[in-house]
Amino acid sequence: MERIARRRDLQARADAERAAGHRIALVPTMGALHAGHLSLIETARGHADRVWVSIFVNPTQFNERSDFESYPADLEADAAACEAAGVDLVYTPAVEDLYPEHSQSWVEVDELTRSLCGAGRPGHFRGVTTVVAKLFLAAKPHVAVFGEKDFQQLAALRRMTSDLGFDIEVIGSPTVREADGLALSSRNVRLGSVAREQATVLVRSLEDAERALQAGERNRETLLEIVKARLSEAPLAEVEYAELRDPATLAEASARLVGPTLLALAVHFPADPEGRGSSVRLIDNRIIEREEEADAPVRNVSSTLLEERP
Amino acid sequence: MERIARRRDLQARADAERAAGHRIALVPTMGALHAGHLSLIETARGHADRVWVSIFVNPTQFNERSDFESYPADLEADAAACEAAGVDLVYTPAVEDLYPEHSQSWVEVDELTRSLCGAGRPGHFRGVTTVVAKLFLAAKPHVAVFGEKDFQQLAALRRMTSDLGFDIEVIGSPTVREADGLALSSRNVRLGSVAREQATVLVRSLEDAERALQAGERNRETLLEIVKARLSEAPLAEVEYAELRDPATLAEASARLVGPTLLALAVHFPADPEGRGSSVRLIDNRIIEREEEADAPVRNVSSTLLEERP
Repeated sequence: MERIARRRDLQARADAERAAGHRIALVPTMGALHAGHLSLIETARGHADRVWVSIFVNPTQFNERSDFESYPADLEADAAACEAAGVDLVYTPAVEDLYPEHSQSWVEVDELTRSLCGAGRPGHFRGVTTVVAKLFLAAKPHVAVFGEKDFQQLAALRRMTSDLGFDIEVIGSPTVREADGLALSSRNVRLGSVAREQATVLVRSLEDAERALQAGERNRETLLEIVKARLSEAPLAEVEYAELRDPATLAEASARLVGPTLLALAVHFPADPEGRGSSVRLIDNRIIEREEEADAPVRNVSSTLLEERP
Repeated sequence: MERIARRRDLQARADAERAAGHRIALVPTMGALHAGHLSLIETARGHADRVWVSIFVNPTQFNERSDFESYPADLEADAAACEAAGVDLVYTPAVEDLYPEHSQSWVEVDELTRSLCGAGRPGHFRGVTTVVAKLFLAAKPHVAVFGEKDFQQLAALRRMTSDLGFDIEVIGSPTVREADGLALSSRNVRLGSVAREQATVLVRSLEDAERALQAGERNRETLLEIVKARLSEAPLAEVEYAELRDPATLAEASARLVGPTLLALAVHFPADPEGRGSSVRLIDNRIIEREEEADAPVRNVSSTLLEERP
């Protein structure tokens, strides 16, 4: 497995691979690799004969310095995990490589990033879209793979790719979960044992809403009450948002749900007493839809969104 | 000469050229081609074996609809001029090709675009950097050529290219002038005959300042007074700004000039009585520097800026 630290070298490598007719898939990560990332790598392998992973904890997407500083980082363990997963190349830039002195250029996606995580984390998505644009220009991939767990991020990156005209196919990869259903996240390790146990309320509340919808409940507010009731069973949980949204535009769902609807959650838990930082922010989401509706292919907006070629 | 209207087709063409080992130079234009553009094309020819010209009147960089609508457009004349100049390919996208439905992604350069033209034209540079990023992604050039007449634009595009990591060399090409010194601009045709005559005060005032500096005047305010005195000789001229700036950062020059300094002007003239739109905005600039200082290569910040490899 090759390791490259400078973007100029990566660009030269990409040119050579492309000239030789190879197809490059990029999996951008912030390291702290877990089974969710390995699943992204597996997805990437299905779309290309060269799988490249970038490992870069991007400072501009953190809202709080403490969150940035407490973000787990073990480059050697991550590189070993990549090698074991059959990754062909890892790109491990220093901050100065992607943010040269006097950096002042930003890539922004507007409407899609205003609500949900964007409302509570000003500047977060600007940091994400900017760094991913830089990673795209550095690695020149044919395909890039991102997790569906970060649904809004995936939507914003698809939009950026399509609007600016990156000649790259963006692929969403399904959320990987612990045995008890908790969505994998690099931040999970910072949960104390009690919080860790209670954190399953996120996936439970998604399941509750799905079940209620299948049973015939279509009222948006009633479904959100069901979600919030389940979340309130976790005394440590502090809900940032629980929202039903149009999966394509992220606009609020209509009062009576029609077609596939995004149910998106952000919940804070106290950090492990030994963890740094004040609390751990977990997100999860699910596209919920009446089964009989999902049978009609034309209604399946979510899979249209997810398969859209930029 | 080839003509391509869709960015997907242009990207495929670029991939083929690059795979065949050719070097592509892109000259982005808004059409209305004049001798200044032909000079950019000539510069491009010196850096690549494929010269591509894009012709696109970018709606997002105009502040006023009337300016956009009165911007001269004659695609067939422009294509003929390109063919005569030996251009290999022209890219003539429709607005929808570069701004697909629901477009909401922007590329912005921050500090460099706040002052000078950026102060009077909110959103202008965001439109420029966004469309040039799109053109870069569409044409995948090795080199791109822009005129030094738009000094601030060139500085912002260099910064964008370097910050985001476009694998593209940005080249500035010297301003081309009429016999009487007026900088060529597609907007010049909209000047009435009296305004056209008075418009030479821009270049005259640049020369006055240069001459005063060579004669020993280093006081910023005194030099600006000399410039403004000359500009005031044109009764139709309405000065938007006349500024002395650091050519690298565009920050205000120190009270006593040291080293190369950008003198930048924006002046409005009434439009031809038959022209549409309210007035014609002309800009011009010059790097002024004491000759004995220019001999010391280390002080020549402007040529460092202009030659900087992104």
